[in-house]
Amino acid sequence: MKGKHVAVVGATGAVGREMLAVLQKRRFPVREVTLLASARSAGKRLRFGEESLPVRELTLESFGGIDIALFSAGGARSREFAPAAVEAGAVVIDNSSAFRMDPGVPLVVPEINPEAVRQHQGIIANPNCSTIAMVVPLYPLHRAFGVKRVVASTYQAASGAGAAAMAELVEETRAQLEERPFQREIFAQQYAFNLFPHDSPLDDDGYCEEELKMVRETHKIFGDASLAIHATCIRVPVLRAHSEALNIEFSRDVSPEEAYRVLSEAPGVEIHEARDENRWATPIDASGRDPVLVGRIRRDRSQPNTLDLWVVADQLLKGAALNAVQIAELL
Amino acid sequence: MKGKHVAVVGATGAVGREMLAVLQKRRFPVREVTLLASARSAGKRLRFGEESLPVRELTLESFGGIDIALFSAGGARSREFAPAAVEAGAVVIDNSSAFRMDPGVPLVVPEINPEAVRQHQGIIANPNCSTIAMVVPLYPLHRAFGVKRVVASTYQAASGAGAAAMAELVEETRAQLEERPFQREIFAQQYAFNLFPHDSPLDDDGYCEEELKMVRETHKIFGDASLAIHATCIRVPVLRAHSEALNIEFSRDVSPEEAYRVLSEAPGVEIHEARDENRWATPIDASGRDPVLVGRIRRDRSQPNTLDLWVVADQLLKGAALNAVQIAELL
Repeated sequence: MKGKHVAVVGATGAVGREMLAVLQKRRFPVREVTLLASARSAGKRLRFGEESLPVRELTLESFGGIDIALFSAGGARSREFAPAAVEAGAVVIDNSSAFRMDPGVPLVVPEINPEAVRQHQGIIANPNCSTIAMVVPLYPLHRAFGVKRVVASTYQAASGAGAAAMAELVEETRAQLEERPFQREIFAQQYAFNLFPHDSPLDDDGYCEEELKMVRETHKIFGDASLAIHATCIRVPVLRAHSEALNIEFSRDVSPEEAYRVLSEAPGVEIHEARDENRWATPIDASGRDPVLVGRIRRDRSQPNTLDLWVVADQLLKGAALNAVQIAELL
Repeated sequence: MKGKHVAVVGATGAVGREMLAVLQKRRFPVREVTLLASARSAGKRLRFGEESLPVRELTLESFGGIDIALFSAGGARSREFAPAAVEAGAVVIDNSSAFRMDPGVPLVVPEINPEAVRQHQGIIANPNCSTIAMVVPLYPLHRAFGVKRVVASTYQAASGAGAAAMAELVEETRAQLEERPFQREIFAQQYAFNLFPHDSPLDDDGYCEEELKMVRETHKIFGDASLAIHATCIRVPVLRAHSEALNIEFSRDVSPEEAYRVLSEAPGVEIHEARDENRWATPIDASGRDPVLVGRIRRDRSQPNTLDLWVVADQLLKGAALNAVQIAELL
């Protein structure tokens, strides 16, 4: 039999829908696609190329005959159902945080550590979206020049919290413009024309989980826990692409020209800027695009050996669905 | 005669209107208020308390009898008209960047360097809004512990580009939601549900003017050019308050508790957070409020002696109109 039987778990979500589009666009060798979601979504139909496929209810018995299960239905569902999928013989590529830091689970960005895939024991984890956006350009710089410390400030889109969060941002914005009251369900505070520190749980020092992910996942992907990384994660009223301001200290002096040269040849990276027009990558430029857009490399004149880099990536594509399908391609 | 004759230059702009409101709210001892603006706005009327005052055309002859002229009409108008105001005997408090770095012009944040006002030769400059938001909490920390280096990432509101920019953000957002085309006039790129690096002109190293202001103005206000400051300035689709993520390296170890203690007593600063609920200051919280809201102090575990601070301030009030009126109060 040619091609794989692929299950998409969380098929009706923002990432699930992009996974279907990416499988199609990249002509992933698919024999059959099974769409799985909660009971609430079962019965819906989604397009996959020319076909209209039914969404089935996710159960522990959903995985017979599945070769690859792409999970994007939240950590709780991954913890509950991924072991059953592995048991049934599938390889799970999990977009949640459930298994990322598990020592037995490879955490893979195909441009960086594709070889890690070989060590999988049934589950391969897809990193957090803000981590992916940072590491795709950071890794080639690290390899070329040795990164000592990174201070990352993020400008994160609604899509990171799912399709319902994107819809809530749109509807709250509409209500604001029409001066109507609006009842939020996803976020605790106003998001329309507003922003707030990422609302994931805090550790004792006041880091939120999103910030810790950027530190710990990068250490695991690079295989180097000595790298000093600090992050501040902020949600901004943007729909689907994350931006990041990275302040990068190297072990030696690196000129902007050297950094541009390395990034111009880095896989998954596109230099996107028009310096003469003072134009740089924006979330709208990155939306619907595969590469991580980078540019605006500046010397940080406040200390030696330090450069600034501006990074924008589609949270749903490279930050989630695209990276997961790229992992599946490695298998 | 009791009270001052105050002119507001650029009275119909976003900052000009706030200046009128602040003069009123703080019961500034006003004998008379003269509203000045471009010929286009002349003839309009604006409320000042119970009164409705006419807007007059700004000319070189506008300043007879004026004691204090609050300028907020852009650098070109300040350069053209401020000397005439001084000539006519007024003290100019200028909100533009025209004179800020002039060695003969004090650059004043009343909570930091009120004594500098005394050296004025007719013009006193109001710092840039992003600078003010940063320095009001940074200065007491610098005094208490000695700041070595700051890496600032800003999340700047539309109001920084004026009332027309605020209106453009609202109208472009409305058009996006209604899927209508929209013709931008202020910004070169989409702002609705988008963000972009600050569009002020670049220097040879690729710093934009807004970023240079945060460095140079802070040096002048602190009277200390040795402080290492690096800034990345980003415009986000928020209406009127600027947020900033500050990564602050001190000369010695500083605990979050010590920093909170200093900031809790710092003038013009309000600690605004509910850590138990993972809630921190947002632009909506700061809008219409006088103090610079701060919080989310975290140890930066990536290097010693370093703390993170989250700052939000109303760009139109403390970032502009309030600071200008506070300078007038010092006179």
